[in-house]
Amino acid sequence: MSFDAVDVIRTKRDSGELSDGQIDWVIDAYTHGQVADEQMSALAMAILLNGMNRREIARWTAAMIASGERMDFARLSRPTADKHSTGGVGDKITLPLAPVVAACGVAVPQLSGRGLGHTGGTLDKLESIPGWRAALSNDELMRQLEDVGAVICAAGDGLAPADKKLYALRDVTGTVEAIPLIASSIMSKKIAEGTGALVLDVKVGSGAFMKKLADARELAETMVALGTDAGVKTVALLTDMSVPLGLTAGNALEVRESVEVLAGGGPADVVELTIALAVEMLAAAGVTDVDPAEKLRDGTAMDVWRTMIAAQGGDPSAELPVAPEQHVVPAPSSGVLSRLDALAVGVAAWRLGAGRARKEDPVSAVAGVELHAKPGDKVTEGQPLLTLHTDDAARFERALESLTDAVEVSTSYEPSPLVIDRITA
Amino acid sequence: MSFDAVDVIRTKRDSGELSDGQIDWVIDAYTHGQVADEQMSALAMAILLNGMNRREIARWTAAMIASGERMDFARLSRPTADKHSTGGVGDKITLPLAPVVAACGVAVPQLSGRGLGHTGGTLDKLESIPGWRAALSNDELMRQLEDVGAVICAAGDGLAPADKKLYALRDVTGTVEAIPLIASSIMSKKIAEGTGALVLDVKVGSGAFMKKLADARELAETMVALGTDAGVKTVALLTDMSVPLGLTAGNALEVRESVEVLAGGGPADVVELTIALAVEMLAAAGVTDVDPAEKLRDGTAMDVWRTMIAAQGGDPSAELPVAPEQHVVPAPSSGVLSRLDALAVGVAAWRLGAGRARKEDPVSAVAGVELHAKPGDKVTEGQPLLTLHTDDAARFERALESLTDAVEVSTSYEPSPLVIDRITA
Repeated sequence: MSFDAVDVIRTKRDSGELSDGQIDWVIDAYTHGQVADEQMSALAMAILLNGMNRREIARWTAAMIASGERMDFARLSRPTADKHSTGGVGDKITLPLAPVVAACGVAVPQLSGRGLGHTGGTLDKLESIPGWRAALSNDELMRQLEDVGAVICAAGDGLAPADKKLYALRDVTGTVEAIPLIASSIMSKKIAEGTGALVLDVKVGSGAFMKKLADARELAETMVALGTDAGVKTVALLTDMSVPLGLTAGNALEVRESVEVLAGGGPADVVELTIALAVEMLAAAGVTDVDPAEKLRDGTAMDVWRTMIAAQGGDPSAELPVAPEQHVVPAPSSGVLSRLDALAVGVAAWRLGAGRARKEDPVSAVAGVELHAKPGDKVTEGQPLLTLHTDDAARFERALESLTDAVEVSTSYEPSPLVIDRITA
Repeated sequence: MSFDAVDVIRTKRDSGELSDGQIDWVIDAYTHGQVADEQMSALAMAILLNGMNRREIARWTAAMIASGERMDFARLSRPTADKHSTGGVGDKITLPLAPVVAACGVAVPQLSGRGLGHTGGTLDKLESIPGWRAALSNDELMRQLEDVGAVICAAGDGLAPADKKLYALRDVTGTVEAIPLIASSIMSKKIAEGTGALVLDVKVGSGAFMKKLADARELAETMVALGTDAGVKTVALLTDMSVPLGLTAGNALEVRESVEVLAGGGPADVVELTIALAVEMLAAAGVTDVDPAEKLRDGTAMDVWRTMIAAQGGDPSAELPVAPEQHVVPAPSSGVLSRLDALAVGVAAWRLGAGRARKEDPVSAVAGVELHAKPGDKVTEGQPLLTLHTDDAARFERALESLTDAVEVSTSYEPSPLVIDRITA
């Protein structure tokens, strides 16, 4: 059945519901170039401003899945569980998490992306390991999942190509911030990937995409409903992103911190969130009798990590690169560190070279921000608070500008929970 | 100063006001291809849904004027007045109006367009006259205005090129129906054209673009304010378009009817609206001591018409073409004709070949609908009510479909005024 693009746009513009037929047609026609970019962007803006209901979002997601291939992990000898984070500053959780869950007997196919803007990309982080490569064929992915139990690699072009095209369009037309489009973008790829269970880490706070709890909750609920309706066991945690996760934001810096966690150490918040997400992934995959914390303590998670890195050409024993230029930011006064803003640290890391402004840009392996204290810690005036890392000392000035209002030292600090809420179907 | 397209889009998306700098930049950058079509269409949808205030609309209009050349009629020996109709079924008023006003001593530069959809275009109508050509150079236009006093010709590409590009985009992206964009589109061309006075015929009813009186009033008020602020004496009439104007809808059919009016006859509503608009144009140009009705009676308006047509290569004495295929629609019962829907007649004329679906399509000179009665007239069952004209008898079927619910015969008819209201600054 064929529709007219202008009729579809008008329907949503006038606050109507898009029919199943309209949605199937517009996604297919857009993927094949019969609906033009300028038509899809007008529709995206109408969706952003007038919304979509649950049925429309589910159909939109299904249409994007149908635009490409689907993978199937059913022939693996163990259950699978996947995790998706909406992105935050210092969010390296995937790196320790995938090996920990695999060490507990559940396979983790972690098809990831590169970073854009101030939240880093998992692949960018792993590429700071000498030799490691992100691209795997579907066969290589399957074999590694079976043999090692954990894969972190680039998502192939075959999954939800409609989403790939639409995401690039939304990025340049001010239509990224639409919850129905965000939810369907994430879930179309995860459902097409064929995982049996999915845990969503929906971040909220200054360093996250969602600044407000209500928006994060709506996004989480929408995604949990989409996954559940598609037969994927899906659960979401709402987690705090007003402060960077751990003590590092940057590529090699975050890999180093992840390895510390895998060695049984590392910052408390990174360990807490890794364990919380691992427990959810294991439960969603039907495994409730294994303690993931034990796998960090006894070294089995580290063993999986080393095998996983080596399987993709990386040398897990290699020294990670270190920034030639470093600049220390001292504590402005003595007292309790009461604020260390995630967004400001994220932007600083990005300006130091850790992230990219455009898809084509390269990233620096060594650039980033190292934290020497976290909110709640006592600090003394003049002590090192942050160390900025970069390849290029000329970048310090703009990075420091972004940190102008990032830090507050006070007399007390009211801690807030890292895991704010848990959303289930 | 330079801006970022996504920031401009986000401002309006989030219901903010666009600054003068943002508006100037986005129109200029769009005209020169630095803002992409998909970005402008997202902005247009945000404007459609979130509106613009008077300041924004005025600036938007000024920016579109600044995108091209401006004409200047100040060196003419007589004052100028222009008229714009928002378009309706059977709206041939420009054809008798321009000669009448010129006969009263005010020059009429009528830069017109071609029709798209069910409302015909003035140029399409005049092109049914053998030899007549729509394209004039600016010099030819000026000379004819000075010598003859009336010109109906194609608007050159030099006026408001931003509007031309934006209009084509809006047409395919469901963003035509935004009052700020409609008003600025019309007024940018009229102000750039340099007329001293402007009368707007804003139509309301089934056959018009604006179906609701409140929308038509808002559009009229917006345009009058824009014209006034730009130093053009501007007034608007709100006129009824629930019934076709006159007894014809089609190209040669409407020329024939216009010549009847110029000869002192013709349907009462066409005469009434021609005189009403002529009085407004003359008053706006400062001429209040001449009676345009007299110019129809004494033949001087007809003299101007013949000179005007001949000046553009047309033969005013030539026989107009007649449709080879005609089909009569009889009155369904006896009584008073209480309804004859403008939109239905417009669509029928369009399907018979009088209009075009796409810009590139040709139109038929002879196709259209002839009315043998108007609402309020007594009719007898079986008498001819409409005659459909076309080049191609295969077109009758779909034209008749559009007329299914167009006609109602009843026992009484409550007449409504043709001129509903008058809007001034």
